[in-house]
Amino acid sequence: MGTLKLHDLELSGNCYKVRLFCALLGLDLDIRPVDFMAGAHKQAPLIALNPFGEIPVFEDGDLVLRDSQAILVYLARKFGGENWLPTDPAGMAQVVSWLMVAENEIARGPNDARLHDKFGYPLDVDQAREKATRILGLLESHLKQNTWLAVGRPTIADIACMPYVGLGHEGGVTLEPYPAVRDWIGRIKALPGFIAMPAL
Amino acid sequence: MGTLKLHDLELSGNCYKVRLFCALLGLDLDIRPVDFMAGAHKQAPLIALNPFGEIPVFEDGDLVLRDSQAILVYLARKFGGENWLPTDPAGMAQVVSWLMVAENEIARGPNDARLHDKFGYPLDVDQAREKATRILGLLESHLKQNTWLAVGRPTIADIACMPYVGLGHEGGVTLEPYPAVRDWIGRIKALPGFIAMPAL
Repeated sequence: MGTLKLHDLELSGNCYKVRLFCALLGLDLDIRPVDFMAGAHKQAPLIALNPFGEIPVFEDGDLVLRDSQAILVYLARKFGGENWLPTDPAGMAQVVSWLMVAENEIARGPNDARLHDKFGYPLDVDQAREKATRILGLLESHLKQNTWLAVGRPTIADIACMPYVGLGHEGGVTLEPYPAVRDWIGRIKALPGFIAMPAL
Repeated sequence: MGTLKLHDLELSGNCYKVRLFCALLGLDLDIRPVDFMAGAHKQAPLIALNPFGEIPVFEDGDLVLRDSQAILVYLARKFGGENWLPTDPAGMAQVVSWLMVAENEIARGPNDARLHDKFGYPLDVDQAREKATRILGLLESHLKQNTWLAVGRPTIADIACMPYVGLGHEGGVTLEPYPAVRDWIGRIKALPGFIAMPAL
């Protein structure tokens, strides 16, 4: 097995997902900090690895992957057996439907709000907070009935969705009205091998 | 096997992905048109099936799924063997990375531009067109080097990404500068069993 390498930014929730899941799996990860403020992710040599000009970028030998959700899928399939991403059609689709929530509703909601407040991104922060309120309400209803997001156990769905929900306060999005969401974050924090990130 | 049921809107590219993939797989699909203009997807009985209040909603017996990309994963795993979604870690992650492009960059780009122009959604259409230009440039570069988006053959990555790229003209996004993208759409249209949708 080649060395697993992550081109990383400590303050990125997307990079943190990869660090966290490797920690939960007990995997060694070669972490390469990227000079994000200098735009290193948009220049050579990183832009050749990921033409999208974003981090995380992940390498396992010759394989290069972009997108945090796709990297979680890779790690789950390679190192997690059926535990973190089942391969039966219904189980896999249910986990993937929450990966899509991470990529869409959570990205457009609490993540965008944080990008505006913490990093100065020029986006419509009111709309982002409105979307955050909507997805947090949906998560709260779901987590009142379910201990984990999908298939009754911790999966990469939880790993993908938790970080930007937990970081929402950095974008003016409080978890105060969502006790079931807070309890769910607490259950993830109690998983063996859990590691934190700043502000979480 | 239960009847496969799709709560559908003919003009939705996300619903079309499901109709198209079922046609390519040769599956019968019970199509139930949703009165979108009346907001039927946000009311009983549909809201109980999908609390997100969106279509498509898919049913296979007791299983209910939301999100077009997740539905494609389900159909590929259940009916497609290894063809449309490989289960090896690298192959699956590469396909999934493009499902994420459908859910993120394409949704925020050409899809949002079309939602504004065709359906009157109150969103920043200039930003959507800017994002459309960016993702189309990335797709063009990728498709100059690759016949299909992932793993060298048609997969659900192509099915997920094509519709809103091909519908971009309904949001003021032309494919004129992107010959490799147009050729790729042509290859998808030539797949056995292909079906069209209005404006595509």
